[in-house]
Amino acid sequence: MITEPTMTVPYTTKRTASDLGPRRLRADNINPNVKAAKYAVRGELAVKAEEYRVRLAKGDKSLPFDSVIFANIGNPQQLDQKPITFFRQVLSLLENTALLEKPEVLRSSFGYNQDVIDRAKKLLADIQSVGAYSHSQGAPVIRESVAKFIEERDGFPANPQDLYLCAGASSGVSTLLNVICNGPTAGVLVPIPQYPLYTATLSLLNAQCVPYHLEEDKAWGTDVEAIRQSLVRAKAEGTEVRAIVVINPGNPTGASLSPEDIKSVLDIAAEEKLVVIADEVYQTNVFVGEFTSFKKRLRQLQQEVPGKYDNVELASLHSVSKGMVGECGHRGGYFELVGFDPLVAAEIYKFVSIMLCPPVIGQCLVELMVNPPKKGEPSYELYQKEYNSISDGLHKRALALYEAFKQMEGVECQEPQGAMYLFPSITLPPKAVEAAAAEGRNADEFYCLRLLDATGVCVVPGSGFGQKENTLHFRTTFLAPGTDWVERIVKFHAEFMAKYK
Amino acid sequence: MITEPTMTVPYTTKRTASDLGPRRLRADNINPNVKAAKYAVRGELAVKAEEYRVRLAKGDKSLPFDSVIFANIGNPQQLDQKPITFFRQVLSLLENTALLEKPEVLRSSFGYNQDVIDRAKKLLADIQSVGAYSHSQGAPVIRESVAKFIEERDGFPANPQDLYLCAGASSGVSTLLNVICNGPTAGVLVPIPQYPLYTATLSLLNAQCVPYHLEEDKAWGTDVEAIRQSLVRAKAEGTEVRAIVVINPGNPTGASLSPEDIKSVLDIAAEEKLVVIADEVYQTNVFVGEFTSFKKRLRQLQQEVPGKYDNVELASLHSVSKGMVGECGHRGGYFELVGFDPLVAAEIYKFVSIMLCPPVIGQCLVELMVNPPKKGEPSYELYQKEYNSISDGLHKRALALYEAFKQMEGVECQEPQGAMYLFPSITLPPKAVEAAAAEGRNADEFYCLRLLDATGVCVVPGSGFGQKENTLHFRTTFLAPGTDWVERIVKFHAEFMAKYK
Repeated sequence: MITEPTMTVPYTTKRTASDLGPRRLRADNINPNVKAAKYAVRGELAVKAEEYRVRLAKGDKSLPFDSVIFANIGNPQQLDQKPITFFRQVLSLLENTALLEKPEVLRSSFGYNQDVIDRAKKLLADIQSVGAYSHSQGAPVIRESVAKFIEERDGFPANPQDLYLCAGASSGVSTLLNVICNGPTAGVLVPIPQYPLYTATLSLLNAQCVPYHLEEDKAWGTDVEAIRQSLVRAKAEGTEVRAIVVINPGNPTGASLSPEDIKSVLDIAAEEKLVVIADEVYQTNVFVGEFTSFKKRLRQLQQEVPGKYDNVELASLHSVSKGMVGECGHRGGYFELVGFDPLVAAEIYKFVSIMLCPPVIGQCLVELMVNPPKKGEPSYELYQKEYNSISDGLHKRALALYEAFKQMEGVECQEPQGAMYLFPSITLPPKAVEAAAAEGRNADEFYCLRLLDATGVCVVPGSGFGQKENTLHFRTTFLAPGTDWVERIVKFHAEFMAKYK
Repeated sequence: MITEPTMTVPYTTKRTASDLGPRRLRADNINPNVKAAKYAVRGELAVKAEEYRVRLAKGDKSLPFDSVIFANIGNPQQLDQKPITFFRQVLSLLENTALLEKPEVLRSSFGYNQDVIDRAKKLLADIQSVGAYSHSQGAPVIRESVAKFIEERDGFPANPQDLYLCAGASSGVSTLLNVICNGPTAGVLVPIPQYPLYTATLSLLNAQCVPYHLEEDKAWGTDVEAIRQSLVRAKAEGTEVRAIVVINPGNPTGASLSPEDIKSVLDIAAEEKLVVIADEVYQTNVFVGEFTSFKKRLRQLQQEVPGKYDNVELASLHSVSKGMVGECGHRGGYFELVGFDPLVAAEIYKFVSIMLCPPVIGQCLVELMVNPPKKGEPSYELYQKEYNSISDGLHKRALALYEAFKQMEGVECQEPQGAMYLFPSITLPPKAVEAAAAEGRNADEFYCLRLLDATGVCVVPGSGFGQKENTLHFRTTFLAPGTDWVERIVKFHAEFMAKYK
């Protein structure tokens, strides 16, 4: 549900838009797949929150809060998070290469260390200019760094030719689904709750979302039985299920999958010949246990059980938007293809080439993310300090929010394991559910709207991600600084529960 | 036609890819729309040229040339063009905001003027960080600057709410066609020759490309009769023609449309209710006459003939990739909607929100492009000097190339008017056409491949853009520095013609 931006009317007439005669394009005759797509993260609530922000900025004193808290989207640098110095120093030299020709840049008070300068020069030697189109798969030197990073992370080789840089993982997901989905009978298994990019993109492609529910009471783990049941159901309905999406660590759930969970998914993928789309953009946002990549687990299984997993097709995604990098606005990411038919890979290349190349500065950020300063290098210490401080801050805030939720009536929340979100369930009084229905809204949407109106805190209703019938949730990031906004939620919740008791 | 990237095979087996068992995805069962899409600009020739470049860089002496000239794509900064200093200085401050806190940055030898600092601060006040997601339509402060630019260019108002920033114009075109095309009966009029983004995107959407031929002997002007005939033919075939694409100045033709030409298109659009997609990314690359925007012409006509043009829907696109900016790698651009139904605009907003936002640094470049230093400001003089030098260089090279083509046997070329390309027609001897057919290639493709193999100059065959039956062309940019590469073409051509005489 999107509020309508107001539109200007033709200059000469000054009539309102609705007075105008019929046009070729109307909401009821545009691409029905676009019309069907839903994307709640930037929907009605986000638009309303932005309106409140603008009103406050203009000095409006009529609102019952003095700031808007955008907890609806994982956008760290909109909130408290400062960019990592090393990254931005290198990027500034890439933008203004004249500085590289001035020896005094090193001795200046501007903090450019030799490793910053060296890195900028290394990147420029390959890309020539951040203003030039790169190779459509991404600049070769950057793909080499990514391959090295994957090798070190997993202990198994990676090939730059199998890597595709993209404008954030979202763009990579779109590419993959565009190639995989061959018509209305094609289906893709998507976890519920999910990040709505998946359902929205499947809508755009007029393909089938085949939902499988995660197990809330097992910390939102992956339920193999649920996947098998969904498969059986989908096949019975004539859907050819081609792929399975796994988000690990989870969005919106924050869950972190064990190696055993990952094996279960790969078992099904091998047996049912499903392409695995592993959305691993939160791989460094893990509080509990250790991140295991799908690629690593796959390679292990290929060694342990020769034959069985040889034909598994895996595409795994990473991004500069999350982790301790948090550079969403730069739109950088990559995906790696494992076990894909070379002819299919060639079609993926052609598809991405139509958009020419991902943003080159975003590509450079990918390089910096996967190849940060090493011990002994001049920028190492500050990098490490900044990185750890962001990581600690996220963990502390996650726990504080979790503790607050534990004390709220009718709210249950799984212990935070990773990612940037909590996804508590809320049990609302029947009167609140009725009041929502009277407005033609889901009860969770009703709750989140009231929360925004009363406190300025913007979260996303669970219905935007999918949830089991008769359950209600909302997703909140734990990125916003301070605890004041958590207190606002606690106070609002108590008042809301009292009102509808 | 795309060469296949080599792929790695699973780690444990070391078999060649073709030995592996069947996979879920094969070239013959992926999305048939992706398979059908063609994009020659980054196809076989470009891939081969890149291979030659790498071989030369590694010291390979076996090739009959010592450099590869990428004349296949308008990528100025890959070649001679230096970025404009003011733009890059502002971007470097946006990336490294720590510099803004150091007063000595102004007095330093680094050349940061006060207006550079002011601009960076102005942008940051709105976007907070280039690492944060912006509004999905683009940062408000940037859309305000674009609106002002359009008002000054056209003499008619523009509204920031009707503006959508995008990751280069390509992404904007994709958005528009995604919303416009509602199924296999939807058709879009596309000029032939065209920039293949249009046919490729229509293939992806399984919509109909309705070609209309441009008039080569009238400097590639728009032929109203050709458009009307195409419309009649398309309707007879059951196609609902919904939109018309005009590329002005033309790609690949370099043509620049007169106000009268533009009126003809708007007349048809008004009569037939066609959405006009005006691709105006080369609006500052005009050598002959003056650029007139579709928006300006539309507003004039709405004043001159009240009523007739009121319901025309126009989307016009611009980009930081072309002009004297040439910042392709930054992926910045925008489109303006004129006369669209607000409910359709809301669907466009939802569509773009799924990908969250265009790259924020690219958005900032859009702001700098439309709002460059003004007379009296410290950075004005250098900006003006750099801008004019790029502009003069492009014009000179276009004329030099044109003169060379005029002297080549069997080559005819329209006088350059704008954009970054020449699109000469070539008449090849029958023996050459036979030799091409024996290789299963179009004759122009055959010619361009031989040219690349012999000289290292990479151009794109006319068949990649579309051309009238029994004609042959190629597209070359006039961006590469020097005249040596033009001489290579002249020499190759003479030898080719002699060989197949």
